[in-house]
Amino acid sequence: MGGDRGPAAVVAGVVDSATRTPSAAFILHGDQAELAKLVARHDILQGRCEIRHADRVVTMHDKPSQVMRSGSGTSMWSCIDSVKNGEAKAAVSCGNTGALMAVSMIRLRKVPGVNRPAIAVLWPSRNPGGFNVMLDVGADVKADAADLLQFATMGAAYARNGLNLAVPRIGLLNVGTEEHKGHAELKLAHDQIAAAAGVGGYEFIGFVEGNDMPSDRVDVIVTDGFTGNVAIKTGEGTAKLISDFLKIEFKATLLSKLAALFALATLKRLQGRIDPRRVNGGVFLGLNGTVVKSHGGADATGIAAAIGLAIQLAQSGFQDRLAARVASAGRAGQDAIAEGASPDISGIGISS
Amino acid sequence: MGGDRGPAAVVAGVVDSATRTPSAAFILHGDQAELAKLVARHDILQGRCEIRHADRVVTMHDKPSQVMRSGSGTSMWSCIDSVKNGEAKAAVSCGNTGALMAVSMIRLRKVPGVNRPAIAVLWPSRNPGGFNVMLDVGADVKADAADLLQFATMGAAYARNGLNLAVPRIGLLNVGTEEHKGHAELKLAHDQIAAAAGVGGYEFIGFVEGNDMPSDRVDVIVTDGFTGNVAIKTGEGTAKLISDFLKIEFKATLLSKLAALFALATLKRLQGRIDPRRVNGGVFLGLNGTVVKSHGGADATGIAAAIGLAIQLAQSGFQDRLAARVASAGRAGQDAIAEGASPDISGIGISS
Repeated sequence: MGGDRGPAAVVAGVVDSATRTPSAAFILHGDQAELAKLVARHDILQGRCEIRHADRVVTMHDKPSQVMRSGSGTSMWSCIDSVKNGEAKAAVSCGNTGALMAVSMIRLRKVPGVNRPAIAVLWPSRNPGGFNVMLDVGADVKADAADLLQFATMGAAYARNGLNLAVPRIGLLNVGTEEHKGHAELKLAHDQIAAAAGVGGYEFIGFVEGNDMPSDRVDVIVTDGFTGNVAIKTGEGTAKLISDFLKIEFKATLLSKLAALFALATLKRLQGRIDPRRVNGGVFLGLNGTVVKSHGGADATGIAAAIGLAIQLAQSGFQDRLAARVASAGRAGQDAIAEGASPDISGIGISS
Repeated sequence: MGGDRGPAAVVAGVVDSATRTPSAAFILHGDQAELAKLVARHDILQGRCEIRHADRVVTMHDKPSQVMRSGSGTSMWSCIDSVKNGEAKAAVSCGNTGALMAVSMIRLRKVPGVNRPAIAVLWPSRNPGGFNVMLDVGADVKADAADLLQFATMGAAYARNGLNLAVPRIGLLNVGTEEHKGHAELKLAHDQIAAAAGVGGYEFIGFVEGNDMPSDRVDVIVTDGFTGNVAIKTGEGTAKLISDFLKIEFKATLLSKLAALFALATLKRLQGRIDPRRVNGGVFLGLNGTVVKSHGGADATGIAAAIGLAIQLAQSGFQDRLAARVASAGRAGQDAIAEGASPDISGIGISS
């Protein structure tokens, strides 16, 4: 109910998914009458789509703290509860991100060993699969070294199960690739992530920079939620600017309008490679249950992409694997400090 | 001497600038024999170009701390000293950024009232002038509220004198535009920057997000050097990715190759709008002297752009105006706190 385009776009996305994945079934949470009418129009949904009535809707303006206190009875709460009680394998929502994270936190609870959950997104890249993973992009505004280690472990688990990469390459976002650069906290995280590579099942390539986001030398980029949020929005804003300039320039003269006709197929292929709808879905990592956050403005294509991601993660057994890795990597990261793997900085007081 | 393309590219840039600005004169710092040979080839430089011999060159691999201790005798040091002793109105360098900031700090010293100097860059935008200012993009990895206030004041002074904007609009970079979002430090900075708008000579539009970097609702985006560095590199990386995909797609088929021929003029105009060479030049703000950092890989066009920026700032009397604004705004920001302008957060302990 919480998406910018309303439940009709969501049901259209569900229809797409139902067609693509004949084994999938759906529970829709929201206004019974409205949803029943939308579902009734599609034969493919008959017998595969259950409706759970919820009186209330979380809006984009509701504060997460309010929703935590009084969100019971909303479609969002009902959706997360269907994962909590085992009826659904994963939740997908187009609603308010902060509220969705808050409700997911208090209903699903954190995986043992995880201090801060994270939101991971896919980002267009030069890698063969076409995407890199970045986290955290905004679950929280800060992260200490132990959190960043957990992000590395969770991001690796996501890349293994979501992108089918056996040993994902992890990079830690910094302002330079030299080891002396950045905050003390980042240097500590660098050593902890390096030490836990074996048990985390990843390769650690060290520091990466903002221009490595689309790089093919890394698969998973780890950062705090403030930096990650700014980075993805800057990337999106830049892509939008170039796309707008491209449109303006192709409309500028008679010759350029003609050129646009010739270039149409080419420009469409370009758009396909960087289309945000193809990679729609921020995944909440570190909770006892899989939650996929779709863009608020997603259309049927975008929503189907988010559902597809949820299905893949559910089928891969991602949730249990992630929990096991986090437990092992946490111990390895701690061992690294206890053993003095980073003697030059271990004496610095680190605030969390 | 420190640019990736060597002194020949620098001298070519100087020739461009000498042609465009007949009143400008130049002091070149570096190897006397090599520079003299390059300068001798250009009639336009005769009598307008002095050479200061320096035996040594700061390389891209030198650590700033080393250069601070033993950088005397390098071309970089000599260049900054020519500003310090009043012979040059501004310095331009293609060399190692960290070393250039370190040498500038110890030789020029900070403007009274400035705690952390900042590096400001221009970023392609939808504004009529075509660019926004962003700072800090990497002079330091952190900034507290007082620093962010100084960045706002210095960024406004730069936009007034460098972009000819009478009352620049300042935005503070955050993960959302709502006032309750972000770190406590950012909320404090929000109130201080708002309180000092009058004496700072800017309009404060509040929080902005990463996708506002190219926006036409803001002129100057203020952030800490870590976030700013990641943001510009992410933007650059995204632009490069799209540009590469565009090339690949236009070469993909026979039809697309034909389309590329038709679209050539259009694509060239697009490239012109987002060409990083047009906006080449990070300006160091907060020092007693104007220093412009050109991209290390800049060609003649890029170097001429950096020199052009240095000339404009020198002619506008930017340096003195900035110092005066910083002094006034600092007092106004402090007054805001003393008067309890932000009662909701003033009780929170803020670490710097």
